[in-house]
Amino acid sequence: MPEQITLYTAKVCPFAQRAEIALAEAKAPYTRYEIDLQNKPEWYAPQVNPASKVPAITYGGPSVPPDQPSPESVKLAESLVLVEFIGDLFAESGILPKDPVKRAQARFFIEGVSSKLFPAYLSFIVKNSGSEEDLIKALEYLQSLLPPEGFAVGEHSLADIAIAPFLGRARIFLVNNIGKDPTASEGAKIWDTITTGKFARLGKYIDDLFQRESYKATFDEEVITARFRKHFAQAS
Amino acid sequence: MPEQITLYTAKVCPFAQRAEIALAEAKAPYTRYEIDLQNKPEWYAPQVNPASKVPAITYGGPSVPPDQPSPESVKLAESLVLVEFIGDLFAESGILPKDPVKRAQARFFIEGVSSKLFPAYLSFIVKNSGSEEDLIKALEYLQSLLPPEGFAVGEHSLADIAIAPFLGRARIFLVNNIGKDPTASEGAKIWDTITTGKFARLGKYIDDLFQRESYKATFDEEVITARFRKHFAQAS
Repeated sequence: MPEQITLYTAKVCPFAQRAEIALAEAKAPYTRYEIDLQNKPEWYAPQVNPASKVPAITYGGPSVPPDQPSPESVKLAESLVLVEFIGDLFAESGILPKDPVKRAQARFFIEGVSSKLFPAYLSFIVKNSGSEEDLIKALEYLQSLLPPEGFAVGEHSLADIAIAPFLGRARIFLVNNIGKDPTASEGAKIWDTITTGKFARLGKYIDDLFQRESYKATFDEEVITARFRKHFAQAS
Repeated sequence: MPEQITLYTAKVCPFAQRAEIALAEAKAPYTRYEIDLQNKPEWYAPQVNPASKVPAITYGGPSVPPDQPSPESVKLAESLVLVEFIGDLFAESGILPKDPVKRAQARFFIEGVSSKLFPAYLSFIVKNSGSEEDLIKALEYLQSLLPPEGFAVGEHSLADIAIAPFLGRARIFLVNNIGKDPTASEGAKIWDTITTGKFARLGKYIDDLFQRESYKATFDEEVITARFRKHFAQAS
């Protein structure tokens, strides 16, 4: 029986959702604490994560309320570090494939998510600047890594956990034409482009990701949509 | 007995040295193939690593000369992926600490190397631009993560493998005043700053890294120094 786990998270944050998906895959008992990213509690940075970001975990130590973290627990942060940690604690979760080659291929896929998809997502979607070409190129590259069927390395793994939250938010942003001319359905057309035709394999992969129970249980479409709308209403 | 391993590497490259240190720690039998980064063989990108970078590994497949890679071997790339892979294959190497918390702390340390030290190293040292302040701040942060003694998480681990090649090259660059005014000993003074006084803990850590057999066996000071001198002579 592993020690207590408290997860500090936020529904809107794709990085935080990675940790939530991993915990759901592991069927790990844990305490969930929502951090309001617009108004973080004062104790959060000094007592949990000096970088003041989500996700973060306290592991072990005495049983305490999440807003009174114990100095005796271990504090861990960074989404991919947490996904690997949960995979290590719960070996039967399948988060870490048993075959070292598949594990390496999953980590290589994640490297593509971090170095190619994330920058394109940030500029084209979050900042609503930059060209859709970069987004499309990153997705083309990631599609090229996919096997003919199944998840990123066949079986579901940390690779899928790393990418799914970004694709979910991209879909919300695009299909709702957030930050775009709503009459032109511009965003919706881009979503269509990256999920059909020469992107049919990626489209199928995205469907598989979105149907996964651990994803559905940790993705609050309503909250994220409202947050995106508010953000871009303020910005425009 | 794991399958055959062929490593495509280059003495000057810090990323490639990570894979070499890991293989040395694992005492893994492997075939080493030096890639001339200024003049890469034509077969390298199509047959080994489409990104055309080092390090890369072929794993398994028939026994073939390294310059005739078999389509039957698995091809793997990205230095940190390879370090984890070698740690997975050779569990007794200690590359991956047995304690999941230490493993997470090692990966968190590496995240600091990737997101803080590497950009500072790139701008201040490789490009010889940018301020030394960024380098000092990154090292201050990493020093703050070190335990009172020993390596990044106490025992030697992947965290130390990830950072050592960059510190080794920083030392060469600085103590030789490469790219600086040689009469002013400017670089040497910076090296002194980051290894003594309030950086004494980091200085001790760096000593420990540089004394490690796996580091010494994979660090060719002469070749790297010559390459740095040539690079900055051309640039100035």
